[in-house]
Amino acid sequence: MADERRFLGPPRRTPLAAILAAAGGDGGGGAAGRVFEGVAPLDTASPAQVSFCEGRAYKDALEQTSAGLVLVAPDLAGFVPAGSIAVICRDAALAFGRVAALFHPVPPPSGQIHPSAIIHPDAVIGEGTEIGAGTVICAGAEIGRNCRIGPLVLLGERVVLGDECIIHSHCSVTHAVLGRGVVLHPGARIGQEGFGFNTTADGRFITAPQLGLVRLGDAVEIGANSCVDRAALGETVLGPGTRIDNLVQIGHNVRTGRGCVLVSQVGVSGSTTLGDYVMAGGQAGITGHLKIGSKARIGAQAGVMNDVPPGIEVLGSPAAPKKEAIRAMLVLKRLGSDSRPAAKQKPE
Amino acid sequence: MADERRFLGPPRRTPLAAILAAAGGDGGGGAAGRVFEGVAPLDTASPAQVSFCEGRAYKDALEQTSAGLVLVAPDLAGFVPAGSIAVICRDAALAFGRVAALFHPVPPPSGQIHPSAIIHPDAVIGEGTEIGAGTVICAGAEIGRNCRIGPLVLLGERVVLGDECIIHSHCSVTHAVLGRGVVLHPGARIGQEGFGFNTTADGRFITAPQLGLVRLGDAVEIGANSCVDRAALGETVLGPGTRIDNLVQIGHNVRTGRGCVLVSQVGVSGSTTLGDYVMAGGQAGITGHLKIGSKARIGAQAGVMNDVPPGIEVLGSPAAPKKEAIRAMLVLKRLGSDSRPAAKQKPE
Amino acid sequence: MADERRFLGPPRRTPLAAILAAAGGDGGGGAAGRVFEGVAPLDTASPAQVSFCEGRAYKDALEQTSAGLVLVAPDLAGFVPAGSIAVICRDAALAFGRVAALFHPVPPPSGQIHPSAIIHPDAVIGEGTEIGAGTVICAGAEIGRNCRIGPLVLLGERVVLGDECIIHSHCSVTHAVLGRGVVLHPGARIGQEGFGFNTTADGRFITAPQLGLVRLGDAVEIGANSCVDRAALGETVLGPGTRIDNLVQIGHNVRTGRGCVLVSQVGVSGSTTLGDYVMAGGQAGITGHLKIGSKARIGAQAGVMNDVPPGIEVLGSPAAPKKEAIRAMLVLKRLGSDSRPAAKQKPE
Repeated sequence: MADERRFLGPPRRTPLAAILAAAGGDGGGGAAGRVFEGVAPLDTASPAQVSFCEGRAYKDALEQTSAGLVLVAPDLAGFVPAGSIAVICRDAALAFGRVAALFHPVPPPSGQIHPSAIIHPDAVIGEGTEIGAGTVICAGAEIGRNCRIGPLVLLGERVVLGDECIIHSHCSVTHAVLGRGVVLHPGARIGQEGFGFNTTADGRFITAPQLGLVRLGDAVEIGANSCVDRAALGETVLGPGTRIDNLVQIGHNVRTGRGCVLVSQVGVSGSTTLGDYVMAGGQAGITGHLKIGSKARIGAQAGVMNDVPPGIEVLGSPAAPKKEAIRAMLVLKRLGSDSRPAAKQKPE
Repeated sequence: MADERRFLGPPRRTPLAAILAAAGGDGGGGAAGRVFEGVAPLDTASPAQVSFCEGRAYKDALEQTSAGLVLVAPDLAGFVPAGSIAVICRDAALAFGRVAALFHPVPPPSGQIHPSAIIHPDAVIGEGTEIGAGTVICAGAEIGRNCRIGPLVLLGERVVLGDECIIHSHCSVTHAVLGRGVVLHPGARIGQEGFGFNTTADGRFITAPQLGLVRLGDAVEIGANSCVDRAALGETVLGPGTRIDNLVQIGHNVRTGRGCVLVSQVGVSGSTTLGDYVMAGGQAGITGHLKIGSKARIGAQAGVMNDVPPGIEVLGSPAAPKKEAIRAMLVLKRLGSDSRPAAKQKPE
Repeated sequence: MADERRFLGPPRRTPLAAILAAAGGDGGGGAAGRVFEGVAPLDTASPAQVSFCEGRAYKDALEQTSAGLVLVAPDLAGFVPAGSIAVICRDAALAFGRVAALFHPVPPPSGQIHPSAIIHPDAVIGEGTEIGAGTVICAGAEIGRNCRIGPLVLLGERVVLGDECIIHSHCSVTHAVLGRGVVLHPGARIGQEGFGFNTTADGRFITAPQLGLVRLGDAVEIGANSCVDRAALGETVLGPGTRIDNLVQIGHNVRTGRGCVLVSQVGVSGSTTLGDYVMAGGQAGITGHLKIGSKARIGAQAGVMNDVPPGIEVLGSPAAPKKEAIRAMLVLKRLGSDSRPAAKQKPE
């Protein structure tokens, strides 16, 4: 914990009453004046710390915790040890987020521009925005208010960032319009040319015109070293609230609706559209020019080569509807585990 | 479109005659003086704009377009609406590229070196080359003429770049010799040590000597955040015209011929050689020390564990020839979709 | 070789006696005064150069080599041509590494801090440490002795680096404690927020608290553009000597033991633990909250969805024990290669 505190600084001491208010939960009657000193997981929390139980899978850890206070769903309240205060919340994980912010509030952007940042005189920087060392902001860029731009970032010519964006170190943003509260983790690449070319009669590749842009909706988050290519013509769009993990590839002219979730190392090829709240597991691949319906779910490592209707879950490579894919996997597993040599399994 | 114009600037107004000359196509008789104002996809183009039809899959969009002029292959000319000028080209996509460049010409490199760039006095920079803010160029580097080096790039000691290279922001290039017209997209990593080590008797890993280099042929393009490792001994080589998408891994001592195409998130392990014009779909993996013949085609997500003869298409993981792989997938699909429980499918 | 020498500089001329001493091998009787001029692979080495034979797979190259001296295992000594000196070593690859370092010694860090580096006055930099151009080191960072920090690196607030770390260009390190001799290749991302969020009643995603850190043990190596996320609470840990290739994803709260090896484009999801000496092939994926036992081996492109016991090898997606997975692959291959139409294979 010593090292953890190294990065967070000392937690703010916080009384039970404030915790209850933030958690929106009930409990702790008669101890409203008690003060807590930080947050920790169930298995390491001390009597001075607050923890939470994510779900039934953590029941054992809950029963053995030394935490002074545990945020917990109603159905698990009975497992909180006698020495802990149980605060009952409808969604303990969400409540824990609000409580943790009491102990470790995120400071607002400093509004300071590091003297080594290289900002073109024709760029517009909103009030309260912080800009890190060595960052380069080009002509015509328009940066909103209260943004936090890390060190060694490139914001290209005429890019637009809404208010309260957070752009971490080493990101590049070109040919892009970002909404409010967009977060780019380190090394994200937004707005570079897509992978499109034509072949001449003598076999040379000529880049197709890459003239479009990237539009990121409000509260979009893009993981470290992920890539979102600009459209060939028109726009590559990630809808509001969409969250993309690290090392994900988004091809040119891809469009997503709101609240899509793409886990690490997913790849979406050019011109594919995703509806709202589509989820794709790690390393899944979706080929180009497909339509993935809203709330479709794509399994980890799935290879999607056809449209997916709304609400459907697909697995496997090539991807198939969940039931069918699982049945095929079971058959294959049976064939593989059969004790007889494979060659003998052939029906007569 | 307002935002698209934001990044492109206003298109140059271009007369029909110039468009015909660039397209190398026929059409528009009697309207040679008509002037156009930009390019757009079929579905959004206005009567003042030029569009193109990529192929038969876009026939419906073609029939409904409002574009003032459409570049189109001979067999689709009959579907161009009455209000549009049909310009018939053998390859409409290639022609469109040339026409789009009339409206949106790419300005030549400025030849300016940003005062914040850190260039070692022993580096040689060719005439006309542009160097971005915060870029670091080390001793002994030799940069050709009319290159465009973006901001925050590292060009390491003694690297060589041919004329007209384009190196986008945040790239690192070390231990590498680049031909003419090489393009590196943001965050590409060229020339770092490969993943090679030996194990001591007591179980420690010792890095094997990584003494070689990377050689990129003329007109090679490498996508954003892709990695090409230097050879252990000798050279890692990408042949002329080879195009590599984003987030691709090229291991040490890999060698490709000319015109290979590796789509996003492909991985090629150490010492594998590819012939000319090999294509690999997204997320395919090729293990080390293999030989992939010229014009071989490797499907998306394929896992190649054996040599592939020239001209062969392989699919699946482990990869098999296309026909065999598809038959296996169909069998598996049938087994999966069978209505009877899996356990009953076992032959008697 | 001319270009190779370009990056290495001229090799130091080295007498046989020094080579024998470094190799810990026997051979070359009577030629102790002979001097060599470099190292090269078997197929290109000249009589003035030293080479080595990695194993029986290279027997043909060994028999045809022109190398003046070959480091070779006892069982291959008989295949060294008459014109070459055979130096017999228990582990020729390890010996070659030591010998190559005689010809191409790595110079120690220069101890120079480039004047363009931006180092907060509250950062502590150890003696002998070299810092590259444009690098940013934040308040409270503690950097050990004899480290080599490349250009355009970010070392965030209060990070800790042990002695003799090598951090290549464009890396970002935040919320992290690094042991001694850690190596980060270009563009590695260490310590950013993980991919964790909760969903509000109205469908918005709220980032879960990301308050933990990354701990990298002594001699850990991380490949180019790989990502290691900080823990939500507690620590993400890579044990001593663990080696990670390029473009690998390590989710928050992952923990590995010592000496794990993860090949390029592997992904390990949050909270999974790996024992000691676990190996995962390229593009393998491991889902979250699993336990992978020590010395387990995970095949390339495998999809691991369940715990793996110690010492077990698994293959395929979903991953199964090697024997079972191979049998299933063979059955599938047979089904795919069968000449009869798939529909007729159904048992009666």
